[in-house]
Amino acid sequence: MASDELKLLGTWTSPFALRVQLALSFKGLSYENVEEDLKNKSELLLTNNPAHKKVPVLIHNGKPVSESQIIVQYIDEAFSGTGPTLLPTDPYERAIARFWAAYVDDKLLASWLQSFRGKREEEKAEGLKQTLVAVEHMEGAFKDCSKGKPFFGGDSVGYLDITVGCLISWAHAGEKLYGFKIFDADRSPLLNAWMERFGALDAAKKVLPDADKLVEYAKMRQAEAAASASNN
Amino acid sequence: MASDELKLLGTWTSPFALRVQLALSFKGLSYENVEEDLKNKSELLLTNNPAHKKVPVLIHNGKPVSESQIIVQYIDEAFSGTGPTLLPTDPYERAIARFWAAYVDDKLLASWLQSFRGKREEEKAEGLKQTLVAVEHMEGAFKDCSKGKPFFGGDSVGYLDITVGCLISWAHAGEKLYGFKIFDADRSPLLNAWMERFGALDAAKKVLPDADKLVEYAKMRQAEAAASASNN
Repeated sequence: MASDELKLLGTWTSPFALRVQLALSFKGLSYENVEEDLKNKSELLLTNNPAHKKVPVLIHNGKPVSESQIIVQYIDEAFSGTGPTLLPTDPYERAIARFWAAYVDDKLLASWLQSFRGKREEEKAEGLKQTLVAVEHMEGAFKDCSKGKPFFGGDSVGYLDITVGCLISWAHAGEKLYGFKIFDADRSPLLNAWMERFGALDAAKKVLPDADKLVEYAKMRQAEAAASASNN
Repeated sequence: MASDELKLLGTWTSPFALRVQLALSFKGLSYENVEEDLKNKSELLLTNNPAHKKVPVLIHNGKPVSESQIIVQYIDEAFSGTGPTLLPTDPYERAIARFWAAYVDDKLLASWLQSFRGKREEEKAEGLKQTLVAVEHMEGAFKDCSKGKPFFGGDSVGYLDITVGCLISWAHAGEKLYGFKIFDADRSPLLNAWMERFGALDAAKKVLPDADKLVEYAKMRQAEAAASASNN
């Protein structure tokens, strides 16, 4: 659809915005990427996502869709004739892909964030413990979904590859910052190998930011937070 | 599909299990309803939902699906030839229905629960404040999705009707318990009228529990919690 106008409101560091960029990249769709300043949100963001006021928002011919997993499903359905199909066609496999995609955000990502953002040491330790449980489940999910093939989606990249793939740059940055590798070769050999394989694909390389830049960004944010705390 | 075996693991008080029951009821599908004891979960539940160990789980010909919104979408897709279609057919309308469905659980239900389960009075007050914001958004969502027709799904019940409809018995019970009506005629006249309309449908009446029984159940749980606290 040559006349389609796609505009993505996001930030280069947001894994959720990166998730949408990955979907657009693997589908081979052109889009305008609008970098938002979350400290000073644009009118475009506020009016197009009034319920959450968050990125990412995909605006397709003037009509907004929010929430990264919903946007990726929308892209797959609205552009079903363009590029690869991301969700499996079988209803049961679709349900399983949706289940693990929800698990990634609700459990894996939530506990991983807690493991370094927790306010007290016990909170961080609990976050790490739950992260390891979630990684074990995701390793099993990879085994079940890929059926011995290279991707969650089988021979080619699918919905779950994109859902997890948006975390890869932060996985590398997290290792540099905190010495913890979320998908390591011992605990999760399948995910560790998948991460390298997915990250090496052209459509992923185009989108995923450099881990060193994320490290710089995280250090800058930490310094800002420390300065702000000492001023209060 | 006469040979299909559907088994639902749930509890009669869980809005999430009720959501699945509503979907099965509106689709006109027969199923075996298995009441779980959450204090002593069955092996069937633990083995079929090892990641969350939670109800509801729908087991279709031996294969489990978990997470209520994912189950409802699965029912709609796996039984596309049976009964009404729950999700809209247009990709954009599907995305909007999914967006508001996610909003119901993440915002509306979460803040409503906080408004009476919060540990401190300030937490409860904040929960109530956020509930009112969420109700206002849902009132707008009803207006946009229904386009002046009786249901979120238009002329007939759809995915969002089922997603919100599972809260109706608890809405009535909450009013009796705490004097707060979540969808009242002043703040949300459209949702208030919709709630009566949806609750009066045969397929809903078959499933939704009596509010007085939920009140009894809630009081029993409160008494148990108080006894347990005084023993510690």
